[in-house]
Amino acid sequence: MYNLLDGLKIIEASSFVASPTAGLYCAQFGAEVIRVDQIGGGPDYHRWPVTQDNDSLYWENLNRAKKSVALDLSSPQGRELLQELVRATGQFITNFPAEGFLSHAKLAEGRADLVTVRVMGWADGAPALDYTVNNAVGYPMMTGPGPEPVNHVLPAWDLLSGAYAAFAMLAAIRKREQTGEGSEVRIPLSDVAIGTVANLGGIAEVLHNKANRPRLGNTVYGLFGRDFVTKDNVRTMIVVVTHRQWANLIQAFGLNAQVEGIEAERGVSFAKDDGLRFEHRDALYPLFERAIGLLDHAMMASKLDAAAIVHSAYRTMLDAAHDPRLVEDNPMFSASEANPSGFIYPAAGAFGTIPQMQRGDAKGAPRNGQHSEEILSTLLGLSSGEIARLIDSGIIGIAK
Amino acid sequence: MYNLLDGLKIIEASSFVASPTAGLYCAQFGAEVIRVDQIGGGPDYHRWPVTQDNDSLYWENLNRAKKSVALDLSSPQGRELLQELVRATGQFITNFPAEGFLSHAKLAEGRADLVTVRVMGWADGAPALDYTVNNAVGYPMMTGPGPEPVNHVLPAWDLLSGAYAAFAMLAAIRKREQTGEGSEVRIPLSDVAIGTVANLGGIAEVLHNKANRPRLGNTVYGLFGRDFVTKDNVRTMIVVVTHRQWANLIQAFGLNAQVEGIEAERGVSFAKDDGLRFEHRDALYPLFERAIGLLDHAMMASKLDAAAIVHSAYRTMLDAAHDPRLVEDNPMFSASEANPSGFIYPAAGAFGTIPQMQRGDAKGAPRNGQHSEEILSTLLGLSSGEIARLIDSGIIGIAK
Repeated sequence: MYNLLDGLKIIEASSFVASPTAGLYCAQFGAEVIRVDQIGGGPDYHRWPVTQDNDSLYWENLNRAKKSVALDLSSPQGRELLQELVRATGQFITNFPAEGFLSHAKLAEGRADLVTVRVMGWADGAPALDYTVNNAVGYPMMTGPGPEPVNHVLPAWDLLSGAYAAFAMLAAIRKREQTGEGSEVRIPLSDVAIGTVANLGGIAEVLHNKANRPRLGNTVYGLFGRDFVTKDNVRTMIVVVTHRQWANLIQAFGLNAQVEGIEAERGVSFAKDDGLRFEHRDALYPLFERAIGLLDHAMMASKLDAAAIVHSAYRTMLDAAHDPRLVEDNPMFSASEANPSGFIYPAAGAFGTIPQMQRGDAKGAPRNGQHSEEILSTLLGLSSGEIARLIDSGIIGIAK
Repeated sequence: MYNLLDGLKIIEASSFVASPTAGLYCAQFGAEVIRVDQIGGGPDYHRWPVTQDNDSLYWENLNRAKKSVALDLSSPQGRELLQELVRATGQFITNFPAEGFLSHAKLAEGRADLVTVRVMGWADGAPALDYTVNNAVGYPMMTGPGPEPVNHVLPAWDLLSGAYAAFAMLAAIRKREQTGEGSEVRIPLSDVAIGTVANLGGIAEVLHNKANRPRLGNTVYGLFGRDFVTKDNVRTMIVVVTHRQWANLIQAFGLNAQVEGIEAERGVSFAKDDGLRFEHRDALYPLFERAIGLLDHAMMASKLDAAAIVHSAYRTMLDAAHDPRLVEDNPMFSASEANPSGFIYPAAGAFGTIPQMQRGDAKGAPRNGQHSEEILSTLLGLSSGEIARLIDSGIIGIAK
């Protein structure tokens, strides 16, 4: 928790990963993010992983530091309350459909300067998910050794869309501060995916070459980078991104003469050209396979560290969770006392660290409807009698 | 191009993906982003894919809509000019080391309200890259059919860090507008990666279960989602995220009786529980494999579309580049007339679409040093004589 966004209130009506991470990042920087859900929870409220009691460890981490209002969103009254909350704050993050009761045009009636950020599937409103846009843009056909496509496990498009949505929210607010005008920023997963392919040069590459990039397994395209296996059977990624690292790498493994031999034979120089190191990988990689296969991992690691070359052994997530450098000794993590699941473990705060400011502990996620009464009273001015009546009639939900 | 960030000037000193995408997203929203590089280009200037002339299709897409200043950053005078540019604008995006001539403390001498956003490897300053932090947090050991780890091809951590850096820049500027105080936001790839594992519930999951998640190939964890192959041999991802979609799916393939049989046999109901559909996948998936294997892709797709179920065939990137919905007919793309490579192809603009505003065409990337004279004159007030002298002495580079 940092207080960069003090004073900013955001209504979030959303589910799954993309839109909730946008709210999460804002909340971790100090915004008051109020997630409004169906009474009993939205479609992601029991998403796996879950505890024995069916409490979602996924939901409680994607919604930390937020407040929760529960409404019956299938009823006209519940929908109207959500609309009024959006109008009361002026900021809205959602993945609800662009048309319908949460359309920007409808919400902007009575709040002309509203800023809406909407994560979508396809730009035309057709549904899509991370795993389907990933297929559509071609990455699974490039991943793994082949021939079958390999899905990513990390929902990368959701995550990128979420961070971009948080950025877009602040950009649109900045514009409004200068002009008084609100706007809706629509962020389709499909555009984030194909736009990223373009940004990384992928569209230009395949149109220029009139062919797909060959499938490379764990080899990095266009430079010296791959996994190698040590004598004690540790598989490690090694990647060289500067010419100095390349010189150091050859030196570290005593391969100067052999590399010079390849350079002479092929009439090239690898010293200042990443691309050539990739192009001639058929000759280069076997040299390093042999050299690394003669060393235990500890010895290889000390050589690489001394040479300032970036490397990392493959580990499991359980290993990572127990790594002090990543988790226990990492000030980004703190104990999470207030988890709805009751399970206590290290909880993450904001990704960014600000040396000039105090980092507060990670906050817990709310239970469904935990802040219904507080928020409907403070933001909409409902009396306790009105709130009680709406609870009785099933329009408002409160935490059990 | 949208003009949300009109009037915001940012100096970017960076390379590769993460930090340049932060600048790119700001530039595509109308900020004036000035990338300062070593004369002749930084370590990413010829990164593959490249043309026959060694022009990088990667660089020219990650640096669209920016300006370029070229300086000899190995010389004290070149370094001082970069420091003065940062101080003149007050906003700085970089992946240079936290200590050294571009440390925030040094830059803030003479510009106390400076906002610096710094993408790092490890939080302690040790080097790391997307592919090595990915190993460190465990995703490659979960990806693909096993037993070997599978690297992602998409540099997801770089991209997420870049979008988060753009968000952090605007958040820190907002804070400065309220308090007058500058700050440095440090964004280590390692924290973005392990923080994301935590946000998705992964840390809680492995500590709760005291075990890693089993490796699932192309099966999505915790719900009904997997790849299936049609009669005409098209491999397609199908994912069910709502209970209505589940009911529709069974209906679409005429599997109600068979699914009820499994429910009766196992004493469960799949109607309202994603997790159970995952838990009993050994029984459910074969039903759908058979049903889908009897249909051609077109027939399967029409059934799924009618049932509002999300699906997508696996395609190559070349297929994607030729898909009118993704590229040609997509208003996010426009022709890029001003590419340094001279090759013309569809270029992407901002991921976000703002219905209330006019989207301008994607701009070209600069050539190294193209704006050196303009920027050093306007921002630092150097005379043309001084600039000429510094060009002659090799401190300032200009585009050839």
